[in-house]
Amino acid sequence: MYYYLSSETRNRPAMLLLALIILFVSFGLLSCQNEGGEMAEAPVEAHPLFEVLPDEAEDPEDNIRTPERVDLGHMLFFEPKLSRSGIISCNTCHVVGAAGVDHRERAIGEGAQVGPRNSPTVYNAAFLKTQFWDGREPTLEAQAKGPIQAHVEMDLTPEEAVSRLEETGYMRYFEAAFPDEEEPLTFDNVAKAIAAFERTLLTPGAPFDRYLEGDYDALDDQQIAGLKLFQDSGCVSCHNGPLLGGNNFMQFSHLGGEDVGRGGLTGTEEDQFVFRVAPLRNVAKTFPYFHDGSVPTLEEAVSIMGDYQLARNYNEQEIDQIVAFLESLTGEFPLVSHPSLPREPQRDRN
Amino acid sequence: MYYYLSSETRNRPAMLLLALIILFVSFGLLSCQNEGGEMAEAPVEAHPLFEVLPDEAEDPEDNIRTPERVDLGHMLFFEPKLSRSGIISCNTCHVVGAAGVDHRERAIGEGAQVGPRNSPTVYNAAFLKTQFWDGREPTLEAQAKGPIQAHVEMDLTPEEAVSRLEETGYMRYFEAAFPDEEEPLTFDNVAKAIAAFERTLLTPGAPFDRYLEGDYDALDDQQIAGLKLFQDSGCVSCHNGPLLGGNNFMQFSHLGGEDVGRGGLTGTEEDQFVFRVAPLRNVAKTFPYFHDGSVPTLEEAVSIMGDYQLARNYNEQEIDQIVAFLESLTGEFPLVSHPSLPREPQRDRN
Repeated sequence: MYYYLSSETRNRPAMLLLALIILFVSFGLLSCQNEGGEMAEAPVEAHPLFEVLPDEAEDPEDNIRTPERVDLGHMLFFEPKLSRSGIISCNTCHVVGAAGVDHRERAIGEGAQVGPRNSPTVYNAAFLKTQFWDGREPTLEAQAKGPIQAHVEMDLTPEEAVSRLEETGYMRYFEAAFPDEEEPLTFDNVAKAIAAFERTLLTPGAPFDRYLEGDYDALDDQQIAGLKLFQDSGCVSCHNGPLLGGNNFMQFSHLGGEDVGRGGLTGTEEDQFVFRVAPLRNVAKTFPYFHDGSVPTLEEAVSIMGDYQLARNYNEQEIDQIVAFLESLTGEFPLVSHPSLPREPQRDRN
Repeated sequence: MYYYLSSETRNRPAMLLLALIILFVSFGLLSCQNEGGEMAEAPVEAHPLFEVLPDEAEDPEDNIRTPERVDLGHMLFFEPKLSRSGIISCNTCHVVGAAGVDHRERAIGEGAQVGPRNSPTVYNAAFLKTQFWDGREPTLEAQAKGPIQAHVEMDLTPEEAVSRLEETGYMRYFEAAFPDEEEPLTFDNVAKAIAAFERTLLTPGAPFDRYLEGDYDALDDQQIAGLKLFQDSGCVSCHNGPLLGGNNFMQFSHLGGEDVGRGGLTGTEEDQFVFRVAPLRNVAKTFPYFHDGSVPTLEEAVSIMGDYQLARNYNEQEIDQIVAFLESLTGEFPLVSHPSLPREPQRDRN
């Protein structure tokens, strides 16, 4: 080394190379230091139970997505013929342009009947391990069959649904979506296509996801204070994972009412008033809150949860902080088109 | 001229120029002859009362379209908050992905009440001179206010509609759409924005339009036979203009029922059972037919019209020809996105 340094005139190319190496190494060190610096500077270390929302949903083995299947599901999701009156579609209660919900307390369906529960959002439902407020179905495919048949929702039998779709001109779309099947237009395949479409309804890129990925400017001070409080006071013990909820069941009887949650399914004493923990993705947009939609604001919902689940009376400042943090869970909603629906007219011709 | 023709060697550039001129003129004549030939070859001369569907709608002076106003109207058209239950939007009965109708006999609205008439299509309504089956309103702006207030449809007062939109976060969109107004969020402006959006819902480019423009291959033989029959047997005397209808009123009492049409408006004897002549654009897609939606097929509708309005019993072949012609009135529908709707949460904060 001395040799090179002591000589100013000899071996200039080598000198240049050395200078370049030094330059690169310095930049490397600097940039490492910056990254390391940011990592170390995390204003609040996010709890390890949190996960970034994936930007792709996995398909189950028996329902691998193809463009044809997703397109069919897109049509079926907007298909009002799947209700007895012909005006209610999946999108009526799970409005894709409105955070995937109807913003009503409880869902309304055929005959203007008001159902027992609040409509959950369809966005990111692909990542849920169980579907419905009581978690009674394991998959999107199983879920999709429920509302179509429920008397207070769309009120069709599977046979009626299939025969309506056939009359309306759907056969060729089912043939394209399920090309290897002898009988492609079945109720099972209706559900599969809808589920395939729903696996595209994701909202990645929320500020909190960016924070989890190391961009600590993604949350402001109020939101970071809310994150800390959310973790320290115990919310995270139920509201965790990529959806901040939806993973387990908890007793929640504080709203009163006749809805006993999982108790209605299992009939056991221990399941009385037990509900699935609500996933919190986009929660700032999916008001009103809880299974009966009885709570209009996020502030009140946070207060109730602190009070009853954590035995903690959050003060106004704390509530504002947690609400600010919850607002950082709003992701980027995709732009969904209104599909062109098949409308085969009835024909009198021979 | 002789000078040039008699000389073979002199002035070659001039000769070349002359040859080129002759060539161009010949081609010109030939191509004129071709066009003339095609014109002369029109298999059936279309009646002069028909008009090509324009691909742009004119704005009224007091509602000039801006992108902001159309975008706002797009949101409002899909806005279920404009109904008492919060699940019925304009798009519920005028489904943009289904030829602008609900394919029900009669419209259904709040409280699952079934209204008195069939939902007319929103497509090309911009070109109608009067709105509704009884033509009781002159403009899209006036029309838009009707269903929002009707008890059997969306069932809101103007005040309720405006206050809901304000609560939901629409103010800034109204400010952008009506920038020069002191009070931009009014019921009048709700109607104006919806009308501005509806003026984009056009379906130009139907085979029949191409035929009118001289492309005689756009209709097949069956459709051309149908066009001839449609003209010769008198349908065209009412079904004319760009929409093939919608221009005048006719008595039509043949379906029975209690709906007396314009008689309900004017109370005069001569208006009993008088309705606006139905526009026929996209009629193959807007089943079922007539003001009460009681006729499911186009074949039956054509037969009824021939029988009662023209005292002519079309045979099966004739009906098929007219239906084939009517199918040539299906234009190109635009792809409409489901808009992202403002959803301002209620806030408890000070």
